[in-house]
Parts: sequence; C-alpha cells; structure tokens
Amino acid sequence: MVEDIQQDVLSVNNSHAKHIRAWAQSVGVTVLNLISSPGSGKTTLLEHTVAALASSRDVCVIEGDQQTSNDACRIQAAGARAVQINTQDGCHLEAAQVQQAIDLLAPQAGGLLFIENVGNLVCPTFYDLGEQARVVLASVTEGEDKPLKYPRAFETADVCIVTKCDLLPYLDFDVELLERNTRAINPHIRIMRAEHGASPEWEQWLRGLDA
Amino acid sequence: MVEDIQQDVLSVNNSHAKHIRAWAQSVGVTVLNLISSPGSGKTTLLEHTVAALASSRDVCVIEGDQQTSNDACRIQAAGARAVQINTQDGCHLEAAQVQQAIDLLAPQAGGLLFIENVGNLVCPTFYDLGEQARVVLASVTEGEDKPLKYPRAFETADVCIVTKCDLLPYLDFDVELLERNTRAINPHIRIMRAEHGASPEWEQWLRGLDA
Repeated sequence: MVEDIQQDVLSVNNSHAKHIRAWAQSVGVTVLNLISSPGSGKTTLLEHTVAALASSRDVCVIEGDQQTSNDACRIQAAGARAVQINTQDGCHLEAAQVQQAIDLLAPQAGGLLFIENVGNLVCPTFYDLGEQARVVLASVTEGEDKPLKYPRAFETADVCIVTKCDLLPYLDFDVELLERNTRAINPHIRIMRAEHGASPEWEQWLRGLDA
Repeated sequence: MVEDIQQDVLSVNNSHAKHIRAWAQSVGVTVLNLISSPGSGKTTLLEHTVAALASSRDVCVIEGDQQTSNDACRIQAAGARAVQINTQDGCHLEAAQVQQAIDLLAPQAGGLLFIENVGNLVCPTFYDLGEQARVVLASVTEGEDKPLKYPRAFETADVCIVTKCDLLPYLDFDVELLERNTRAINPHIRIMRAEHGASPEWEQWLRGLDA
C-alpha cells in the first residue's frame, strides 16, 4: 500500500520531469541537478560557476532548502537569476516545484539552469527533475566510503565533484580512494575536483555543453 | 491520501518507540539517537566515546546506513558491541528496526545504547526511536546557517555537538555564529564542541547520565 502510493507520487513526478526535459531540449536550455549532503559546497561551487560563466550566457539557479532564502540571495549576489524553493518538511525537490520555478525564471535559449537540490544524499536521488545531467558533490571532509554507503547518489550521477580539496593538507583523507570507490559504484562517472569552490575542469566541461 | 499513509507509518513507528522507551526505563539503559548530515563525524565521535566509556559500563551501538557494515566494524574495533542496519533505499531508521537490533545486542542494565541514524538532516527527525535524548551533530565545514536551513533537526534535539573544531584555523567559519543560530532555533539545547572526534564535555555529560 505504501509502495503503491510511492509509485503514484513518482509517476506524477516523472510526467512533470518529461515535460521539463522536452521544453529544455526545444528551447536549448541545459538543466543540471546538483545533489549532495548538506554543507558539501553546492552553493559555493555555483557562486564560482556563475562568476565564471554568466557574462557569456544566461545562467539561472533554482535553490532547494527546507527554510531560508540564504542560498538564492548568495546566487543573486554572484550575478545570476535565482528562485528559492522552501520545502518545509520535504526532503527533496520534485519536478512540479521545478516547473513553477522555471515559469518564474524564464531561462533563455542557450542558457544553463542549475537546480541545487535539498542537502540530502538519499531522497533526491529518486526524483527525476528533467535534468540533462545529474551532478553529485562529495567533500573531502566527509570520508572516503561515502559512495559505498550511499551508492544510489553516485550510481545515478553523470559527474562527481570532489569539493574542498584545499583542505587536503589538514586532513587524513585519501582522495584517490574516494575516487576509486566512486568508480566502483559507477565506472562511467566523470570525476572533477574543486578548491575553495572553484573547479576549472567543471567550468570547461560546462562550456563544452554549448556544442 | 499520501498524508494519511504517512500518519499511519508514523503511528506504527511511535508504538514501537513507546515500547523501546518503556523497556529502556525498566532495564536502566540510556538510549541516544544521533542525527547529522553524512560525514559530520558521528562514527568518529562514537569511536572516541566507546574508548572513553566502555571500560566502566556496557556500551552498544546501532549503526544505520544505506549500504556497507563499515561503521559497525569501526565501532567493534573500538571495543563495543555493534549491529549494522542497512536501510537500502531507506533514508532514516525506524523504531521497529531498532527493536530488532536491541534484541540482538541485549544491552545491559546501567548501559548506554547509541543509535547512529542514517546520515540525513531531514527524514530521521520525524521518527521517534524511543530515545531518552536526541543529539544533532554539525561540523564546522558545513556552514553557519545549517540550523536555519534545516531547523527541525536542531529544534527536536537535546544536545548539539559542533564537530571538527580542529579544522577551525583553516576555515573561514564563525563557530559563535553557528551556536547563535542553533540557540535561535532551540534556546534549551546544550551545545558542546569536538576536536578530532573527542569531546571531554560530551563524555562528562554522558557520565552524568548515570545518576
């Protein structure tokens, strides 16, 4: 019974996601869904991404949190249009919420639309938001076994960004082991590193999505 | 309809939790439920806690993760009895799972039973596990606004442990601001700090629970 209801919720979500994906393709907007633990550095990465790319193309951000508009304010200050969704008791974003935010943001042709999901490595992985690519972040302060303990987040992602690499000198952390564990779960994933929220490799990859 | 089903699930959970709380009180076992983001340092804190306390009283640990037995192995190596629960697709522990683990562990009178919940600041907050006290962990690498963005985790906790304070010299992080934000959400919460997983204040507080 509970499983039936969950299937119904996912089926409604998938129908909204399909609509978003078709719209994005027709308009030429690239949609990326960012998933990680709370505090892994999603907003900081996006601040740097906006600063690097917003002068050359349209960049919009949808921010998901239980409460506050802090993250949308940070993104707006960095120079992009942003809408905050407060999920209250909710543990993930759903495609219907993303659709409402898209209607408000009106992303432009050739642009990038980032969705920063609620900080949670489990629930958001079940909800397709109509993204072209899913990005999982893992910070070097979180432990090398995160991909093994929360496999679905890494299994369903196209890109993994290892954040806070600037802290490596102060930690007993084996970044190669994290990367091996990530590839053990998902051999096709692209792995990139970020320091202080900046990742030239990530920015270059995003620029390549133009083509 | 979805809300009705959720209510039913919570009501079944609460009935198991009530049973666990009554058992713990009758036997004299103190049950603590640890909640945090993935990678905030719950297992490292428990390793140090076990090393500090297991010689003087019975200490058992229930470990929740989607996959792997890594954390239970770490706790056993530190010197306590531990059972791992793998939740697979599940985003939180439920009281019925805790009851099964209690049956396996058979905690002794006067002992401590720690439940390390699945790493997630949202979903575990809705599930009473029969604990005497709820403990939320926030690491200094996660951002000072975590209590404001995920208020229920801090609102429902009795103790907040600020972990990884040894990294403060390398971060642009205002620990007093985190503590003010935590108290704004929950004025009655006890706040303690940990460095490298060790917190003398926390160990002293646990010893006081003997009384």
